[in-house]
This record gives sequence, C-alpha cells and structure tokens, in this order.
Amino acid sequence: MAVQKPSIPKGTRDFSPAEMMRRQYIFNTISSVFRTYGFAPLETPAMENLSTLLGKYGDEGDKLLFKILNSGDYAAGLDAEALRSASKICEKGLRYDLTVPFARYVVQHQGEIAFPFKRYQIQPVWRADRPQKGRYREFYQCDVDVIGSRSLLNEVELIGIVEEVFKRLGIGVTLKINNRKILYGIAEIMGHSDKMVDITVAIDKLEKIGMENVKAELRERGIEDEAIAKLQPILELKGSTAEKITTLRKLLLSSPMGQLGIHEISSVFDYVERQGIALPIELDLSLARGLNYYTGAIFEVKANDFAIGSICGGGRYDNLTGIFGMPDVSGVGISFGADRIYDVMVGLNLFPSEVDFATKALFVNLGTEEEAVALTALRAVHNAGISAEIYPDAGKMKKQMEYANRRNIPYVVIIGSNEVAEGRATVKDMRSGEQSSVPLDNIAQALR
Amino acid sequence: MAVQKPSIPKGTRDFSPAEMMRRQYIFNTISSVFRTYGFAPLETPAMENLSTLLGKYGDEGDKLLFKILNSGDYAAGLDAEALRSASKICEKGLRYDLTVPFARYVVQHQGEIAFPFKRYQIQPVWRADRPQKGRYREFYQCDVDVIGSRSLLNEVELIGIVEEVFKRLGIGVTLKINNRKILYGIAEIMGHSDKMVDITVAIDKLEKIGMENVKAELRERGIEDEAIAKLQPILELKGSTAEKITTLRKLLLSSPMGQLGIHEISSVFDYVERQGIALPIELDLSLARGLNYYTGAIFEVKANDFAIGSICGGGRYDNLTGIFGMPDVSGVGISFGADRIYDVMVGLNLFPSEVDFATKALFVNLGTEEEAVALTALRAVHNAGISAEIYPDAGKMKKQMEYANRRNIPYVVIIGSNEVAEGRATVKDMRSGEQSSVPLDNIAQALR
Repeated sequence: MAVQKPSIPKGTRDFSPAEMMRRQYIFNTISSVFRTYGFAPLETPAMENLSTLLGKYGDEGDKLLFKILNSGDYAAGLDAEALRSASKICEKGLRYDLTVPFARYVVQHQGEIAFPFKRYQIQPVWRADRPQKGRYREFYQCDVDVIGSRSLLNEVELIGIVEEVFKRLGIGVTLKINNRKILYGIAEIMGHSDKMVDITVAIDKLEKIGMENVKAELRERGIEDEAIAKLQPILELKGSTAEKITTLRKLLLSSPMGQLGIHEISSVFDYVERQGIALPIELDLSLARGLNYYTGAIFEVKANDFAIGSICGGGRYDNLTGIFGMPDVSGVGISFGADRIYDVMVGLNLFPSEVDFATKALFVNLGTEEEAVALTALRAVHNAGISAEIYPDAGKMKKQMEYANRRNIPYVVIIGSNEVAEGRATVKDMRSGEQSSVPLDNIAQALR
Repeated sequence: MAVQKPSIPKGTRDFSPAEMMRRQYIFNTISSVFRTYGFAPLETPAMENLSTLLGKYGDEGDKLLFKILNSGDYAAGLDAEALRSASKICEKGLRYDLTVPFARYVVQHQGEIAFPFKRYQIQPVWRADRPQKGRYREFYQCDVDVIGSRSLLNEVELIGIVEEVFKRLGIGVTLKINNRKILYGIAEIMGHSDKMVDITVAIDKLEKIGMENVKAELRERGIEDEAIAKLQPILELKGSTAEKITTLRKLLLSSPMGQLGIHEISSVFDYVERQGIALPIELDLSLARGLNYYTGAIFEVKANDFAIGSICGGGRYDNLTGIFGMPDVSGVGISFGADRIYDVMVGLNLFPSEVDFATKALFVNLGTEEEAVALTALRAVHNAGISAEIYPDAGKMKKQMEYANRRNIPYVVIIGSNEVAEGRATVKDMRSGEQSSVPLDNIAQALR
C-alpha cells in the first residue's frame, strides 16, 4: 500500500493531551456544578434520522447538515436524477445541535420521564460551515435545560449555575438579561407587533452599530419615525435596574404582554437579590438573541476582562417539543461555549498549573537493580492516588530528564545505586531545580 | 409542518440519565486509573478523510465505514456512473475504531510528541454492521496505549491498570496472556511458519469447539497429522505457569522466535510477581486474538462470575504507524469494553447506590414564605458540595414526593410553616421512611 501523508478534514481538530487536559478541566468544572444543582447527564446518538433534523434550522441550516450515505448499495434501483437528490441516498445526518435531539428525546421518552426534567448534555455537533478562525465543523456544545416547569425559579437556578461555574473557573463575567415578552411589548406599543422579528434584529445590533444606524435599519424595514420615537427612550433607559423597570412599566403600560415580561424579569431580580447571588446582572433591553423559539427570559454572559463574543447564553422556550407532537411544554436552558471559555482562560492565564501535567512524578530508570526498587516505590505512590510513572527503559539520566521536561512533569524521583544502598530517593523539583533526599517510604508524602 | 413520530436510526442508542450516570461511573473509574499511571487524554475528530480509513480494516471493514456525503452540490459535474461510486461523492467517513486515528495522529504530530507517548482515548466509533443484541452501530471505545518503547515494563504497567480498574469496579476477573512470537514458534516447529494465521485461527477456537474439532479444522487447512501431533502437547500443557514455561522452552527449542516469546512472557510474569500484582493471570497458549497487527504479548480479560465474552483485551504491535510512513515504532495497548463491563456490573449488581441518583435531596416547595426559607437553606447545601434541588412550583406534598420517588432521590427536606416557625427542617429518608428534625443550619450535615 502506498504511504500517505496523513491529515484531517478541514474544520476539524485533534486535541492533544495538553489541550485535552485543559478542556476536561472546563467540562468537569461545568458538569460538577450541573450535578450539584441536580441536573443529570443525557447522551443522544451522533446520527439522527434526517427527518428529525430537516426543517428545524431554516433553509440555511438544512444546507449545513452533514449527511450520511446509506450503507450497502446506496445506488441500487436509482436513476441519475434520483442520485442527484441527497434525500434519496441519505437517510441519516449528524446532529447539528443538542437542542433538537433533546426535544426528540423528550417526546420519544415522555412516558418514562419525571417532569420537570433536568438534564445536561455535553457532546460534539457538526456543521458544514465554511471553516474560519474560531469556527469549526466539529465542536462541543454544553447544554443544561429544565423542561416541564414554568416556574421562574428555574431561571434563577440557571443564574446560580452561571455564577458558580465562572467563579470556579476564575473568570469575571457579567450576565445580561432581557425578556422576549418585553420585546414583544415594545413592538406592540410601536404599533408593529407583526414586525417584532425585524425590530429585535435591528436593536440587537445597538451595541455594535449605534443608535443612528439602528434607526436607519428600522426605517429600511418599514418602521416609521413616530414608532421609532417610542423605541428610542426605552433603549436609552438609564439608572439602576429598579429604576429602569419602574420607567419601563410606565412606557409599556398599554401592552399586557409587555407587563407580563416586566413582571417576570423583576421577579427574577427579586429572587436573585434574596438569594445573595453576587454575579453582576444587567438588564439589557437591546439583547434579543437570534433563536426565534425563545418566549420569555433570555440570557447572555460576557467575560469582563477579555474581548470575545458571549461565552454562555440561553433562554426560555414554550414550544420546543411541539414539532414532534408534544405541545405546550415550557422549558428554559443555557449553553456554555467551551471553545470560547478555553480561549478566555488561555488569554487570562487562568488554568491552574496542575491541569497542565498528566504525570506528577517521573521515576528515572537506572538499571535492573535500581528499577526493581523504583517499581516498588512507584506502586506505593500509585496506591496513594498520585499520578506517576517510571521511564520504561534503563538509560542515561539526561535523556530521561529531557523526557520529563518535554512532558511538563514537575517532579523527578531518582533512585540510583547510592539511593538503593541508603534506602532513600532523591526527589527533584523540575521547576526550581531543588533536590531533597527522602526515605523510600515517604516519596508519596514528599510529592503531595 | 406535519407532526412526526420521533425515532432514532437503528443500531444507535439514547442513554438516559440513569444509564449515563452508570456509564460515567465506569468511564471515570477507568480514566482515573489511566491518569494515575501517567496516561494523558487525546481526542481526534469523528470524521477522518476516507483515504485515512480505507484499506485499514480489510474489505469487510471498508464496507462497514459510514461515509459522509460531500457538502455543497455533491453531484456537480458528475455523470450517473460517477454518482454510483461512493468515492466520487464522499471524501470523509466516520471513524471505525480509535487505533487508526491514533496511528494517524502519532505520524502527523511526531515532531511535537515526547516518546514514549502514553495516551488514552475514550470516544464513540461507528460501524455499519447489521444491528443485533449487544452489537451497535455507535459505541464507545476506551483505549490506552504507550507507543515508542519496546520495554516489557509497559506490558506490566497495563496489567497493573487492568488489576486496579477491576478492583475499583468490584469485578473479579482473570487475565489471559499469550505471546504472538510463541504462536509463531509453534507454527515453526510444526513446519508451517507460513500458515501461522491458519493455525492461530484454529487454536483460538479450542475453548469453544474442543481439541478434536481444532484438529479437524487444521487438517482442512492442509496441516498434516505429524505436525498436529507436535501441537497437541503444547495446547494440553498442565501445571503452574513456571512449569508450563519450562516445558514450552524445551518443546520450542528449535525456534529462536519462540524462545524470544517465552523470554518475554516469563519476564512479564517475573515483574508481575515482584510487584505483588494479585490479579489472577493465566498463560493461555490457545489465546490468539483476531487482529493481525499484534507481534508480542496479547491479553484478554474475562469476568470470573458472569458469562460474557472478553471485557478487555489488547497486545503489542510493532508497525501500527507504518501505513502512514513511520515504520518500526513499537507500542502496546489495551481496550476496555464499556458496554460489556456495564452489562457485567448490572448483572452482578455492582453499581454503588450513590451512582444511581442525580440529586441527593429534594427540598419541597410549600408556598412563598416556606420557599424563601428553603432557598436559603438550599444554597448552603449547594455550597457544601451536595447535589440538591427545590421543586420549582409550590404545590401538594404528595406530588412532590412522587417526583422524588420517580427520580430516585434518597432524601426529601420538608420546610413547612411549622418548620419555618421553629427554624428547623424535617429530613426524610425516602428508603427507610425515617424522619428527623434538624436545625436549618445543619441540613448539609444531616445529608452527609
């Protein structure tokens, strides 16, 4: 067979051990917080029936699905025209997100599930997007949702999770919050409840393009100046959250839906305050979020000290499972962006140093007799739960030290003939260069 | 859009929270042992170029690859004949195992890797096999390998890992070990070193079909009786491992390769004994294992008290990376069969009870005032690192108790108006039915 120069498909990545240990630190931290709040893990298959996926992400999304060629003789009995139709030769596709498989799971297993159903899911998704910096064709999503309860306590619980996750990771963040019902109320008092999507798409850009450009875009979308004049004071609301809410309540007086949204958001703020949640939370009336299935609270989290898009976001939806025949099931969820969180932590140098080594101590291997002593000592270190290994071949100290350095191993344990004679080991700290002599029985202690 | 009855592709599975918690217990136990021995995690993409995968698993394997339809207009410029050729419309496929992607990774990144390279990899693989009981189209593999060292210490380390993993999981196991060089030596003294594969395929069936049938199969494969007469005493060797090795050394005297195999295996046994590894290890000369890339030690692990195939297996290979242009890199690895381990643990009732609940305590929700007190108490329980949740809607005790039961939550914390007045909570053990009254500050302690 000809020798091939190996490579991987564009837009996909290998994760080296150094990257994986950092990624696992992030995923373990997040899932540990999810578990503390009583959320349980769920996994769905990578492949879903195309009938499950198609039509759920818009026409653009349909084009970005990776389709799996039917196995066996996919072309059997098909003419050229049929072969040009992906739906004739593919029945399955790779999941595009975790939301649709979750909805599918809930509907399929509704009889076995105790509602409210609290689940988290950390799995890769695939999109045939054009690869570019920060955009991949395979990436992990990390979703947490509770479905089957309308209680605002669920929103508050998710805020508590956001606070705890970023506290544990050491990232200073601000949570922005808004409510789709308020956005509807705004459209309503503008006299354009039918154009809510146009309006929210425009005001979502406020931070990026500024008020004048938002107004220009609204005009282009057929909103007259009189309506825009009602919007502007809302977007320019100043003061504390309580002050904003008081003013907003007056401005949206004629919209029952708007009032409901204000009630929801002020209830959430009340809960947050009573629970002593210290996370900075900002009511941002320009926050809209793209996904149109949100119907209540919407969230977005940004890092305070690192310029990157949102690192976490989500909201409440009322009809996720409707498409699969189970209407009126309300839920709320958020999703953590692992790749961006990784970039923030690298940028701010936040990974604890112990995340960066797989092995805490390398036992050097200096010959048959020394090796035998080292193996016994190593076993005791393993039994103490400390990660350690022995260099598998007896040989030059220098080469073994280089190996320890390349693998970022912080301690080297040297057991040479002198040490064997004395019943001791030399433990070398590879960062400081310091060496200390310890009894063979005390190596685990010295490494702690 | 029409309502669809949701389902998943045949041969794939959803893993419910209850199953996931058990699976994670297995994966976490295994990876924690890997980490103790200094192995670091690696992940490769689900999709590989088909050029990486094709030709690596035999003709049968090629047929079982899931192929990804090229994105965009896959049919552009292709005539009907071309459209009938999967290689024209698919460039990528889903990985079939973790071994080939690992070899591809090592070759592609050889400049960055410090050898010996110790990695583990726990990811799903996909095979378009006909689904049947215990055989799925998507399943996890769980591989640990060290590559770039010929030292037998690596074999011993893997045996140590096997011992520790199954000790922690509580599964009694026996490790069977053999060596491909011994099998070659056997073929050699039979005068059929060219028929080593035929011979090993036949004797691999010894346990299943018995000696007479093995002999019949060998005859069918063109091995004459005289040669078979040399094989039989080897397969019928009795006594301790040391006795078997002594006899074998004599029987294979004329095969240098056989002698090398015996030297390797007896060295491994010596190490195991000196290290005090208590795992039962059996020298099984009929053990062959299917994969032809093994060149030295081969392993297989079986559960002692549950009838199922091997739950772990592996061996040494000398040329895994050769296909990608990097010859003569020796490695050794084993793979844990997570699905079978799961079945054994269910069958023997080995999962600790704490694996089976996501939430340790449910705080019931009995109204606005009670909820406020409960939320404060809940936050303290979370801060103590105990998984707990509050029922999100105030309502009937009975419904909330049912929810706790259905979710397998072992404790319920009741804070009603009496409890609020007294500054206490009632903690109910859902299994025993016992109730105790504790001060609000002491709930975490009571739940420990």
